[in-house]
Amino acid sequence: MNALLKEVRHNPIFWLLAVVPVVFTAAKLEPEAHSLLFVLSVLAIVPLAALLSHATESVAARTGDAAGGLLNATLGNLTELVIALAALRAGQYTLVKASIAGAIVTNTLFMLGASFLLGGLKHHVQEYNRVSARMQAALLFLATIALLVPSAVIEADSAPGAAFTQKLSLGLAVLLIVAYGLGMLFSLKTHRELFASAQHTDDGEAPSPIGVALATLAGVTVLVALVSEIFVESVQKAAEEFGMTPAFVGFIVVALVGGAAEMASAFSGARKNRLDLSVGIALGSASQIALFVAPVLVLLSYMIGPTPMDLQLWPGAVVMVLIATLTAALVTNGGRSAWFVGVLVLMVYLIFAMTLYLLPPRVA
Amino acid sequence: MNALLKEVRHNPIFWLLAVVPVVFTAAKLEPEAHSLLFVLSVLAIVPLAALLSHATESVAARTGDAAGGLLNATLGNLTELVIALAALRAGQYTLVKASIAGAIVTNTLFMLGASFLLGGLKHHVQEYNRVSARMQAALLFLATIALLVPSAVIEADSAPGAAFTQKLSLGLAVLLIVAYGLGMLFSLKTHRELFASAQHTDDGEAPSPIGVALATLAGVTVLVALVSEIFVESVQKAAEEFGMTPAFVGFIVVALVGGAAEMASAFSGARKNRLDLSVGIALGSASQIALFVAPVLVLLSYMIGPTPMDLQLWPGAVVMVLIATLTAALVTNGGRSAWFVGVLVLMVYLIFAMTLYLLPPRVA
Amino acid sequence: MNALLKEVRHNPIFWLLAVVPVVFTAAKLEPEAHSLLFVLSVLAIVPLAALLSHATESVAARTGDAAGGLLNATLGNLTELVIALAALRAGQYTLVKASIAGAIVTNTLFMLGASFLLGGLKHHVQEYNRVSARMQAALLFLATIALLVPSAVIEADSAPGAAFTQKLSLGLAVLLIVAYGLGMLFSLKTHRELFASAQHTDDGEAPSPIGVALATLAGVTVLVALVSEIFVESVQKAAEEFGMTPAFVGFIVVALVGGAAEMASAFSGARKNRLDLSVGIALGSASQIALFVAPVLVLLSYMIGPTPMDLQLWPGAVVMVLIATLTAALVTNGGRSAWFVGVLVLMVYLIFAMTLYLLPPRVA
Repeated sequence: MNALLKEVRHNPIFWLLAVVPVVFTAAKLEPEAHSLLFVLSVLAIVPLAALLSHATESVAARTGDAAGGLLNATLGNLTELVIALAALRAGQYTLVKASIAGAIVTNTLFMLGASFLLGGLKHHVQEYNRVSARMQAALLFLATIALLVPSAVIEADSAPGAAFTQKLSLGLAVLLIVAYGLGMLFSLKTHRELFASAQHTDDGEAPSPIGVALATLAGVTVLVALVSEIFVESVQKAAEEFGMTPAFVGFIVVALVGGAAEMASAFSGARKNRLDLSVGIALGSASQIALFVAPVLVLLSYMIGPTPMDLQLWPGAVVMVLIATLTAALVTNGGRSAWFVGVLVLMVYLIFAMTLYLLPPRVA
Repeated sequence: MNALLKEVRHNPIFWLLAVVPVVFTAAKLEPEAHSLLFVLSVLAIVPLAALLSHATESVAARTGDAAGGLLNATLGNLTELVIALAALRAGQYTLVKASIAGAIVTNTLFMLGASFLLGGLKHHVQEYNRVSARMQAALLFLATIALLVPSAVIEADSAPGAAFTQKLSLGLAVLLIVAYGLGMLFSLKTHRELFASAQHTDDGEAPSPIGVALATLAGVTVLVALVSEIFVESVQKAAEEFGMTPAFVGFIVVALVGGAAEMASAFSGARKNRLDLSVGIALGSASQIALFVAPVLVLLSYMIGPTPMDLQLWPGAVVMVLIATLTAALVTNGGRSAWFVGVLVLMVYLIFAMTLYLLPPRVA
Repeated sequence: MNALLKEVRHNPIFWLLAVVPVVFTAAKLEPEAHSLLFVLSVLAIVPLAALLSHATESVAARTGDAAGGLLNATLGNLTELVIALAALRAGQYTLVKASIAGAIVTNTLFMLGASFLLGGLKHHVQEYNRVSARMQAALLFLATIALLVPSAVIEADSAPGAAFTQKLSLGLAVLLIVAYGLGMLFSLKTHRELFASAQHTDDGEAPSPIGVALATLAGVTVLVALVSEIFVESVQKAAEEFGMTPAFVGFIVVALVGGAAEMASAFSGARKNRLDLSVGIALGSASQIALFVAPVLVLLSYMIGPTPMDLQLWPGAVVMVLIATLTAALVTNGGRSAWFVGVLVLMVYLIFAMTLYLLPPRVA
């Protein structure tokens, strides 16, 4: 408890935890104040995500290497998963799909680009281990391709019917999860040395005791789930009031909110000239969304959604994800970075955001 | 004859040669048993392809370096060419085009992926000459792009008429063959050292005498041609009975059958930690399909086909070939491989296969 | 004056300057002889472009490093800009857009490919600084992506209306120019050492005095503008007479004419085994078109064009620009080149040219 409390006291992000009870009160008292609830729930999810990531690491640190790595790998995108589950239960499949595609794009463009920029403002040229960066970029590319192939082929061949899409999505989900399992075997067991530097994200302080950490993990997950429900309920109406399209909300807002904790780690790594860490978090997290979060959501849609969800993204999303992944592969290829590379990667992200913001709602 | 016979006795694949007479008998007695004829002809083509490849190498080994290299380069995909010719004569242009695209995809994804996996299961991390791998991946990328550009532009610009497509295909075929000729000049004459390790695929045993080898080459080619005819006649009906689409058959079945012999060489190279060899065979063979087999088929369609064939692939095939080539370029870029890279490359192939298998027939 | 005159005397390209007065006379006497005016204006622009590039370098050499670099970077594509402005004023937006896309494609495929081929014919294998080549290829890729994203997303999402496209193009133009400004800060100030070898393109001779150089710069710019007007007026009709589509003229003819001076520098660098120089000119010039020329034209269209111009390219152009940029990234990745790489890059360009030449006019 001690360590957790100290963390909470020292890191200003955790002061936002005070918003959590406010959200629940507001949702009770003013269930129709969508814009307010939207803003409050966003503010509440950010510190909860940070806490969740912290608790996961504490549990991981206590349970030994193999189990801990497994935990980190599975729960690393827990916030995204919980938010998407709330949207899934509400049958908001556009939001779910936008948040999947958006998380991949945000991790590979915003997280990577901002890491390059922040690191580059402090260090003239930053070098990082290009062998592991390349391996990770290749894995990310393949993971994303696996996710996108059906969408791309279906689009190209002009929509051959829902039954086909549904069957393909199911088969694909199973394949992706198998690949994800093999990927963990690879990165945690047979070839762990390739991913070494990206594993430990905390800076040498003593982790919380296992009991506390597990309780925090469980408790915070429930809180995130509850806040997510308010978020998902309010987002549609709030978006309209703010003049944002659902695609923009899912792609940009949800992805930035859900990934806030990982971004903090990645940016801090970049400032300390440990770009290996930043690249590892950004690309690893994006791979995990493609190989684990997305297929799990498809499978769960059979149990908790109103109807089964398929994996077909709308054409613009396919283009963006493909470009984001290619950009990551090309940019990390040389193992060197400078601030302007970060500027350009961020610019691509900004252009995506601008396009989605201006896009008339009916399209998404 | 001695060496060839010894080979036949030692390599279990050649026992399948016993199927060859069975096919012909069955085709005479039961011309309507399409599924049976399909299975038998597949089983017969595999050992014939292996024999063809063996005979080509024997002739090449006897005729000296330059002529031998030329022969190897020209006849390396003879099986694919002969099968495609049979389909061309029957006017089955969808099958021909699917087998061209499929051979490129199968070589770059299945052959490469399985080599990485098989090699990776035996060796922890495999390093290979990344300079020559990159050069070959760049050549393959450009060769494929050259083949795909018209399809991509035509699709994007919504089908500007058959006369245009036909004229473009003819001009393109001539260009590709010129590039192929220059490519041979490059790889066999001016820069042979870059491709050195990929040339000799046999393991130091004495080649058959030239007369025997030439006779085998001619005889086996005729046999492949005859079996291919049975194959092409039966494939359409058999595919329906097995519930396979023509696109799946052309893309996956024909490509796997036609490339069986090369795959054996590539896999054996990977197991022996000679990934240079595997990468060279996979990428070289795919380039050859794009630069030589495809344009030759277009030119021959003016002579032996019912109508001229163009080079326009259906949109889904363009997407798959592009992704396959990009994957090969990214994956071979680092000059290192481990088993999970193979798994992911194979997964992309599996997803293509699954998509094609499930795709309703009318689309392809 | 001395140096300039000497240059004019020694370089046969400047003899073409004699065509300049002929163009003006012909335009006065035979305003309807479109084909003649077209050919004459092309012949006149080539030496003027070379003179312009020469004058820019002279001014740059006199004004010190920072201001000179700025000048070189801004005026490097002055010819392309002036021609496009003439087309803009005439409201020929298809020609403007084709010339933007064409300049990127021509620089990355033709200039790079011909440099590789010409260099490779003289030197067996050419090595160049792959760190800076990769950095430049990454910048080019991102610059092009930034330019293309809206077109790609709009296409994929089936045209969501002109108001959207217009707003997006304006926002994008501002973003691109900001990125361009930051890029100059990067390449001229904070990280100039990365671009060092590509800066000085002249071979150590004394530059003209600043006054002469400035006067030449101003005078030649006016001449190019006047000739461009004749060119733009005649090109549409001349193209019809020669059987060329407007897309072909914009993409291929304008780009080759406008880039003639830079090509001369790039090719001469390649022959001298200084491929760094060639790659730097080709990729740098293409980046500049995407980040500077294109957005400036959009902004100016609000002032001088009949209606605002958006940045949406037609689908085939998007495909070609994407392929060209990817090709450049892959091909320069290894830092090595040989003649056949040049042949294949040129072949992709030739195929683009052939496709555009054969494409029925209505499509573009």
